[in-house]
Amino acid sequence: MDIVSRVRRHGLRNRICDAATAAAMIDDGMHVGTSGFTPCGYPKAVPLALAERVRQGQNIRLTLGTGASVGLELDETWAELDMIARRYPYQTGKHINRRINRGDTLFMDIHLSQVAQQLRYGYLGPMDICIVEAVCILENGGIVPSTAVGNAPVYVQQARKVVVEINTTQPLALMGMHDIYLPENPPSRLPLPLTECNQRIGASYIPCDPEKIVAIVPCDLPDRVRDLAPMDDSARAIAGHLIRFFEKEFGTTLPPLQSGVGALANAVMAGIEESPFRALNIWSEVLQDAVLDLIDAGRINAASGTSLSPSPRGLIRFHSDIGTYREKIVLRPQEISNHPEIARRLGLVSMNTAIEVDIYGNANSTHVLGNTMVNGIGGSGDFSRSAALVVMMTPSLAKNGTVSCVVPHVSHVDHTEHEIHILVTEQGLADLRGLDPREKAPRIIENCAHPDFRPLLWDYLQRARQKVGGHIPMLLDEAYAWHVRFLQSGSMRP
Amino acid sequence: MDIVSRVRRHGLRNRICDAATAAAMIDDGMHVGTSGFTPCGYPKAVPLALAERVRQGQNIRLTLGTGASVGLELDETWAELDMIARRYPYQTGKHINRRINRGDTLFMDIHLSQVAQQLRYGYLGPMDICIVEAVCILENGGIVPSTAVGNAPVYVQQARKVVVEINTTQPLALMGMHDIYLPENPPSRLPLPLTECNQRIGASYIPCDPEKIVAIVPCDLPDRVRDLAPMDDSARAIAGHLIRFFEKEFGTTLPPLQSGVGALANAVMAGIEESPFRALNIWSEVLQDAVLDLIDAGRINAASGTSLSPSPRGLIRFHSDIGTYREKIVLRPQEISNHPEIARRLGLVSMNTAIEVDIYGNANSTHVLGNTMVNGIGGSGDFSRSAALVVMMTPSLAKNGTVSCVVPHVSHVDHTEHEIHILVTEQGLADLRGLDPREKAPRIIENCAHPDFRPLLWDYLQRARQKVGGHIPMLLDEAYAWHVRFLQSGSMRP
Repeated sequence: MDIVSRVRRHGLRNRICDAATAAAMIDDGMHVGTSGFTPCGYPKAVPLALAERVRQGQNIRLTLGTGASVGLELDETWAELDMIARRYPYQTGKHINRRINRGDTLFMDIHLSQVAQQLRYGYLGPMDICIVEAVCILENGGIVPSTAVGNAPVYVQQARKVVVEINTTQPLALMGMHDIYLPENPPSRLPLPLTECNQRIGASYIPCDPEKIVAIVPCDLPDRVRDLAPMDDSARAIAGHLIRFFEKEFGTTLPPLQSGVGALANAVMAGIEESPFRALNIWSEVLQDAVLDLIDAGRINAASGTSLSPSPRGLIRFHSDIGTYREKIVLRPQEISNHPEIARRLGLVSMNTAIEVDIYGNANSTHVLGNTMVNGIGGSGDFSRSAALVVMMTPSLAKNGTVSCVVPHVSHVDHTEHEIHILVTEQGLADLRGLDPREKAPRIIENCAHPDFRPLLWDYLQRARQKVGGHIPMLLDEAYAWHVRFLQSGSMRP
Repeated sequence: MDIVSRVRRHGLRNRICDAATAAAMIDDGMHVGTSGFTPCGYPKAVPLALAERVRQGQNIRLTLGTGASVGLELDETWAELDMIARRYPYQTGKHINRRINRGDTLFMDIHLSQVAQQLRYGYLGPMDICIVEAVCILENGGIVPSTAVGNAPVYVQQARKVVVEINTTQPLALMGMHDIYLPENPPSRLPLPLTECNQRIGASYIPCDPEKIVAIVPCDLPDRVRDLAPMDDSARAIAGHLIRFFEKEFGTTLPPLQSGVGALANAVMAGIEESPFRALNIWSEVLQDAVLDLIDAGRINAASGTSLSPSPRGLIRFHSDIGTYREKIVLRPQEISNHPEIARRLGLVSMNTAIEVDIYGNANSTHVLGNTMVNGIGGSGDFSRSAALVVMMTPSLAKNGTVSCVVPHVSHVDHTEHEIHILVTEQGLADLRGLDPREKAPRIIENCAHPDFRPLLWDYLQRARQKVGGHIPMLLDEAYAWHVRFLQSGSMRP
């Protein structure tokens, strides 16, 4: 694995070392930032080497900041060994999730666009070291990231020391795909000079003082990308409702689309492939397989994100023709991809997935039964507060039909009734724009709830209207009766 | 009351008429927009004349959109006569409040910055007519608003017909105080070219096609401004905690400040007068007496808002020296004053008041006991999602000490645990930045809750940790036990 030619600044070549040497620079108690957003573009060799030190008896517990979730070599390996004392801003994985919910790991669940400025403002404390996966280092010391940008630029800017992992499975042809713009802190912050999805406003690399680079490590482990869950009937139905609504609302030209991560989000994008929409603009966080399909079909004008996160098959396809995809795709810092200024200016259609919604149009995206963290709020709040049209999606049922995802009152609120315009389940779509909460409730029950639960929701609503009334009729002593019933009997069904 | 000289476009002078003539242009079922934001700058003569038609037996029920709350002549007079079928986006007053909570009036509680674009996007339906209070009409047909801008510019742009009330109690010297910038809809929307609080980026008047002006009505009723509630010990203590925190956090130079409306907000600004901070920049919605005091004391660099809402004494003071105040004050459309793009760019300190907060740092700003609408979310959500430092304030007790404003779980969520950085009550201040929810709870209980309720909150928290655990330990069957107890016994105390 020769990475010398990928370190174009000759004076830095003497900092090439193995992963164990770099890992030895990380001490117990440190605040570590890494690149990575979804299982893409995260460092692998140094995290594994650090885990090895712990296996050999070292006591190392760290604060870890990333872009969002990262691959197994980092979060899961470290969490299994209980190496993560504090974690932000988003995560996925059995071990990290268990640690957080048990309290072994403290977790700061932050709007993804805000991490960078919170770090610069000092809200998250000083950062000791960052580890960034790159395809190469330029003559000026600039770091060319790989398949994700995430928070790497701000971590490189703010950390005292920088470790670069040059990943030789990441093709050099990724160069030119990134656009790195770092806003100043106020009062020097300027308008973001961006009015179109494919516009480039920054550098093609992460600027870095070469003196801060303390180690350059070779790595040949590929991104541990995951297969998407197969598209089920429910996802297909949700996509169908949404696309019929878009056709009525927008005719043939869609506004720029933001779409969350996962099988449901991918199903919606796949549904768009069968729709009449052309010259699509994507302004999102994560670009998945459906975006590659749409580019192949000549349907994409521009696709902007902070991470390219295809399936294993998608990754092969992407590698086979990077030059073509690079003409359409721009990867940006998540501070920019999720920035409220741009979401508002472009007039996004924002589509995200909720765990549960309630009859007044509040959504829970983070905590099952109010207490158990799933992944985090991610970028959903960045987009939902500032997009032009805010869509929340969920299947109407979960847990083999024992749970209604439309409930009297959500057990945790991440997105409020003030900002959700459209709710969609496989049952149908509720357009909530311009409505009073008392008008929303019947529409949500009839259009979105599963028929098995509609009578129960109607019963709750009628009694809330009669016994309590007000602008948002609510039975305080029954608000969570369904959740309690599930805890007691294993089902929300009576 | 001669207003001819205030109608500088000669061709419009034949549209001068009395209020009754203008009111006759408004029919049952219409969608009406008005100027006004707090009891300032709202139309008075035409609303009163329209109410008179209803008193004489006409059946008129309308959809009413304003900037925020408005004075008695409009909301309260119309609500008393049950003339308001639908209302947005904010309101204050006994009658309008009762109508909304009884269901006579439907109420759309919208983030204030978003009303303009929702109207332009068509989410609120077409607007038939708008009524705008002005100090004069210019030769080009431009309308110079009075003490508030609010949503007047977009209503003038979107309504089919425009009625102008020329208010002769509003001095012509207000000319030059306004800055009217109207963003385009996407895809033509551009970066807002504003980087400082006192910058002017638009016209000094509301552009208007003169053909749309169907009536020009004289009015000599002054703004029905209200006295501020006297500053109590609780407000003084909250201000004190906050200012000591600011001194530690910011040294002598504060970031631009956004401050909510009312006695508590005014107390904080008054507290700042006794602080060492100089060259203050205010970027807010409503400018109250304390801002005039700070200008008098030479402490203000710039004060930007959408409404100038002083007390009766403050108004006299303002009128006596408009020229001086005008050098510091800019009034803008609320689409700009509350725009997330600017809030984020300027790095605001945002300070707003909650009805109740919970031990994890969620805030309820709108609904008492989850169901009863108070005023609306107003601009608090515009600022809290995008400001650099987000402060929520509340006294620790309400209702003569029977209610704890720090509860296990808020009965309605307007601002989530993801975005609130600082909670303050008269008891103290909790700095929640960079904390996990399980770290926030003890800090909020110890620093913010009233000592009488701390043992009860600790008891809830301990049991939630032991029985349920998770990232946000929560007892679903007890979440609202305090609210239920209040309903049953008149007190949250056991």
